[in-house]
Amino acid sequence: MSKELRQHIEEIIPLTDKDFSYILSHFTEKKLKKHQYLIQIGDKVAHTYWVSNGLLKATYTDEKEKEHIIQFAMENWWITDYQAYFTQTKAILNVDCLEATELLCLSYENREKLCKELHKMEHFFRRKANNGFIALQKRMLSFMTNSSETRYDLLLKQYPTLFQRVSKSIIAAYLGVSRETLSRFNK
Amino acid sequence: MSKELRQHIEEIIPLTDKDFSYILSHFTEKKLKKHQYLIQIGDKVAHTYWVSNGLLKATYTDEKEKEHIIQFAMENWWITDYQAYFTQTKAILNVDCLEATELLCLSYENREKLCKELHKMEHFFRRKANNGFIALQKRMLSFMTNSSETRYDLLLKQYPTLFQRVSKSIIAAYLGVSRETLSRFNK
Repeated sequence: MSKELRQHIEEIIPLTDKDFSYILSHFTEKKLKKHQYLIQIGDKVAHTYWVSNGLLKATYTDEKEKEHIIQFAMENWWITDYQAYFTQTKAILNVDCLEATELLCLSYENREKLCKELHKMEHFFRRKANNGFIALQKRMLSFMTNSSETRYDLLLKQYPTLFQRVSKSIIAAYLGVSRETLSRFNK
Repeated sequence: MSKELRQHIEEIIPLTDKDFSYILSHFTEKKLKKHQYLIQIGDKVAHTYWVSNGLLKATYTDEKEKEHIIQFAMENWWITDYQAYFTQTKAILNVDCLEATELLCLSYENREKLCKELHKMEHFFRRKANNGFIALQKRMLSFMTNSSETRYDLLLKQYPTLFQRVSKSIIAAYLGVSRETLSRFNK
């Protein structure tokens, strides 16, 4: 899985073999089964995770016990409870596996260490943060201004493979509509 | 206004006089009157802006010509159309002044230059990007899960001064409710 991580980082910055082997030494591996939790509400969130293989969702549970899907993550994506991770507070989200999943884990300390020691890794993570902000803003704009049917069409267009990998009720929870409403969009 | 910018940057990284004077040389000043536009939909977005004095809003206009407020910015905040700025595409947002405003402007080229030349500035902007992501995710979670009345209470608690500076119809546009609905919350 390390080859893919290297490719992923090199989309933004060039790396020597020595750079990459040093960077990789700061990650640990983790394997989870389908339905297993990576993060549960109230956990200390020590790591951010890069998905080598598999599919996860991050969800927020509201006062009425309703689940809202904040983010999916599949191959080459990063996932964690960012608020808890960046501010070193307890998790407010659950993150669980929709498929058997293989991850590379980077602790907060090691991420800060890499950013401090290697200017180009600080650049990499700044660029990733900027891209993440744009993606989240797009999602919020879409949430504020588009109908659920339009958001369904956009999701289908943006992540066609997602629809083959998750159930309809998961798609409904991401869009914030009922399973019944979703079935109307499918026609 | 440069003293406040230095304080703002030094909340995250220490600066020598020489550092700061070099950093400041990459900014230009801009003054706008109340109601003036900083960015209009379709503009090339060459700069990000740090607010020295004043108040602005960034808005998205939907297909029905309804305005949605994406972000406010007041003293010590940064504002631009981030999607357009980071991806060097045309503006999809309007940014205009709710008060007479003084700004320090940083071009995309100068921001990248500073990040490349001064590792600590890359660190500063990475930290700002991470904080921005968390703030936006909080807003989206609130939008997905809270009633408009709860969101009103949270906004009042988070930014009490904002309510003295903008009209009720602006607050309504930020919360995504009608002016009539908002007036019920005020009681």
